[in-house]
Amino acid sequence: MAPNLDSYFKTVDANAEAFIDRLRKAVAIPSISAEDERRQDVVKMGMFLKSQLEALGAHMEARPLGKQPGKEHLELPPAIIGRYPKEKDESKRTILVYGHYDVQPAAKVDGWRTEPFELSIDDKGRMYGRGSTDDKGPVLGWVNAIESHQKAGVDFPVNLLMCFEGMEEYGSEGLDDFIVAECKPGKFFADADAVCISDNYWLGTEKPCLTYGLRGCNYYSIEISGPGQDLHSGVFGGTAAEPMTDLVRVMNTLVDKDGNIQIRGLSELVAPVTKEEESLYTNIAFTMDDFYESLGSKSSIFEDKKKTLMGRWRYPSLSLHGIEGAFSGAGAKTVIPAKVTGKFSIRTVPDMEPHEVDTLVYKHVEQAFDSLGSKNKMRCWLQHSGKWWVASPKHWNFTAAAKAVEKVWGVQPDLTREGGSIPVTLTFEQATGKNVLLLPMGSSTDAAHSINEKLDRRNYIEGIKLLGAYLHYVAEEPMKEA
Amino acid sequence: MAPNLDSYFKTVDANAEAFIDRLRKAVAIPSISAEDERRQDVVKMGMFLKSQLEALGAHMEARPLGKQPGKEHLELPPAIIGRYPKEKDESKRTILVYGHYDVQPAAKVDGWRTEPFELSIDDKGRMYGRGSTDDKGPVLGWVNAIESHQKAGVDFPVNLLMCFEGMEEYGSEGLDDFIVAECKPGKFFADADAVCISDNYWLGTEKPCLTYGLRGCNYYSIEISGPGQDLHSGVFGGTAAEPMTDLVRVMNTLVDKDGNIQIRGLSELVAPVTKEEESLYTNIAFTMDDFYESLGSKSSIFEDKKKTLMGRWRYPSLSLHGIEGAFSGAGAKTVIPAKVTGKFSIRTVPDMEPHEVDTLVYKHVEQAFDSLGSKNKMRCWLQHSGKWWVASPKHWNFTAAAKAVEKVWGVQPDLTREGGSIPVTLTFEQATGKNVLLLPMGSSTDAAHSINEKLDRRNYIEGIKLLGAYLHYVAEEPMKEA
Ligand SMILES: [Zn+2]
Ligand SMILES: [Zn+2]
Ligand SMILES: [Zn+2]
Ligand SMILES: [Zn+2]
Repeated sequence: MAPNLDSYFKTVDANAEAFIDRLRKAVAIPSISAEDERRQDVVKMGMFLKSQLEALGAHMEARPLGKQPGKEHLELPPAIIGRYPKEKDESKRTILVYGHYDVQPAAKVDGWRTEPFELSIDDKGRMYGRGSTDDKGPVLGWVNAIESHQKAGVDFPVNLLMCFEGMEEYGSEGLDDFIVAECKPGKFFADADAVCISDNYWLGTEKPCLTYGLRGCNYYSIEISGPGQDLHSGVFGGTAAEPMTDLVRVMNTLVDKDGNIQIRGLSELVAPVTKEEESLYTNIAFTMDDFYESLGSKSSIFEDKKKTLMGRWRYPSLSLHGIEGAFSGAGAKTVIPAKVTGKFSIRTVPDMEPHEVDTLVYKHVEQAFDSLGSKNKMRCWLQHSGKWWVASPKHWNFTAAAKAVEKVWGVQPDLTREGGSIPVTLTFEQATGKNVLLLPMGSSTDAAHSINEKLDRRNYIEGIKLLGAYLHYVAEEPMKEA
Repeated sequence: MAPNLDSYFKTVDANAEAFIDRLRKAVAIPSISAEDERRQDVVKMGMFLKSQLEALGAHMEARPLGKQPGKEHLELPPAIIGRYPKEKDESKRTILVYGHYDVQPAAKVDGWRTEPFELSIDDKGRMYGRGSTDDKGPVLGWVNAIESHQKAGVDFPVNLLMCFEGMEEYGSEGLDDFIVAECKPGKFFADADAVCISDNYWLGTEKPCLTYGLRGCNYYSIEISGPGQDLHSGVFGGTAAEPMTDLVRVMNTLVDKDGNIQIRGLSELVAPVTKEEESLYTNIAFTMDDFYESLGSKSSIFEDKKKTLMGRWRYPSLSLHGIEGAFSGAGAKTVIPAKVTGKFSIRTVPDMEPHEVDTLVYKHVEQAFDSLGSKNKMRCWLQHSGKWWVASPKHWNFTAAAKAVEKVWGVQPDLTREGGSIPVTLTFEQATGKNVLLLPMGSSTDAAHSINEKLDRRNYIEGIKLLGAYLHYVAEEPMKEA
């Protein structure tokens, strides 16, 4: 039986201005995790969140995560964890939600039209401010949902466990071990029946989506060195074996002009696309014009929606990011760099095991370099690796979320993947052994990580309804796992 | 008849400490032309030079060169020009000498073992200090030669014209037009019969050389752009045509692994090597061990002295310097750069006309890019161009210098070229229409432009003798031009 959500929804609407004010207070705290001198603001934001939830009767804890690796004078901001209601109701499901209270750097001089740490709402309801959509809006969405239940006098439908971190924009330092530890039996997150993360975006601006897959990423360096020091091309050009020439030749073998990866054996690791899967892509609300708009030009590889979506979500890709050690400034410098390091990464998909990818990459790069017969030295290594993630969208966690979307937005959500990675997703899946759902609040035009980040008022307010409704549908879903 | 130089040489030896002290005073003035805040020190150094020569009775002028292009608040340091003796002796030849009184940047923290702006002499007579060899030592060589003639009571054998600039290490801003103007009939440099520049180095450490050729340099940029802004490789990898992939493919077509330029038609522009010319390379005092030492490793293209020398002096070369706009830092960044600019340059030799090289380069790069069928945009342009220079080493200017070397050092000098360019050489040749000689004072280990720059005491003192002796032999050479 569908839950009756009317009074909850009405209360959200009636308190919209207060909820926007709560977001305004949060945006005003410049909790930039990448800047050491802002560390106190990150902590302040964590404390703000904790006190808001405590005021609503939640049990909250600020858990220290130790010193920042490589900056031993700097304490990491705490993980803010909590439980609502305070006492677990054994008759209800337990849902673990995650968000982050830190933000990307921002400064007016970067090109912001408004002060980045003042919430500025325009006449179309676009609420500009750093962190508005990533991820303060969604995090406060859970706070607002709790408050609206209280004000509406509606029983909270689940046991809610919360995990909010303050280092997401700087590599989630210290968090993985913490999550793994707290998901063990008897620990804080042990009882989670499912996980919900609201930290991504709709594919477009009109249609909500549920996200069930992410690509992984293996990031590599190729270092080529020879001369004892940087050389002048006048003196040594034509006589020194130039590392840069070798590197360009090796990098040239990695990917063809259409983006096809040239590493032998790599495509064999990719799970074959099934007919059923292929049909999923046809109905998704996405057009090539959307794509061209986000790309800022028409320089796409494909001119077809399905191929483009599959290129982003379903197939691996290889990008050449740049070269360290070569001349990279403006103007002209006649240097022969002594040591250059090419950077590239491969976005991975099922069933590419990260270490199998490494093996194929090393073999390919070694062969490519050996074939040059160069007197220079080459070294190739993995900088970091994060695995792909795919959840079952037929799980009750997803079907509940889909019903909530239909109730709030009046449409069935698209089932999407993302081309990028959200590493904490995989950590939660592995640590809890439960289904993880990505339930975005903001839209594709929100400009997270860019200047003029915003969250639309509509997405915020309806998003609060959505998070609450999701918990009600979760409470009603049959217990069998899909 | 060989001039009697004995009393001149003895006087140089007798005044060695005073000449070293003069160099110490010059090194103490940090005349760094690249640093705006040091501009007053550059001017101070010019004035020091002017006053030293005035004290010896020379006619000196400090000629303004106008504002620095692009930095209109900054006056360029003056050209210090002069004539010695004050009144021209019409019975004597007139020799125009050039040097520069500015230096490269230097700071102790860069790794200097001594204070860069204090002349520090070790027990092997190595005189460390910024500018010691480039180019304050050689410039003061002329001053010391004049003083030694006066003290020895030896008649100065020529009319000496001097041109000392203060912006050589920063592109010789403003100098070309000045030289061209002052070489016109009736102007300051109009009467020059030949030109001598002491601003380069011996090929090794033991054998002096005369330099008669320089390679030119055409420096190019290839810009490839597509997306409207930098992209995240998670979101756009596999769907955007990446400018970096295109650029690496285009750069890969420019030069092969052995340094052979792959631009069609370019090698046809190179003057064929004659048998006579080839024999010149055999006797030059240079070994592969010298080369490996300067390279700092054994990663050479050739393992043979003649091929290495010809690769440096006689053939064109192409170096890939780097990429602007791509990720160039340490660590990992998953960016797809929206616009990348590859930088490369070609060292040119006779008879490669710079504009013919441009035409071939543009055609090659366009074809390479077109063959990709990419949706990105490409633009290739010349950043700057400087022509090669080759003088006749049979000219009396060279034979006089060769005799002076034999007199001072007891050996016949090697006739060398250089792989790099000294643009002012070509300017003097074209403006005067006369033979230009490069007569180095320092040796290959002097580390001009590096940390721990030095000039050996022996090279300085014998170098003063050499400059004076050269003027005496010049005075005696038959007037016919070779
Ligand atoms: Zn986020
Ligand atoms: Zn973010
Ligand atoms: Zn110099
Ligand atoms: Zn220099």
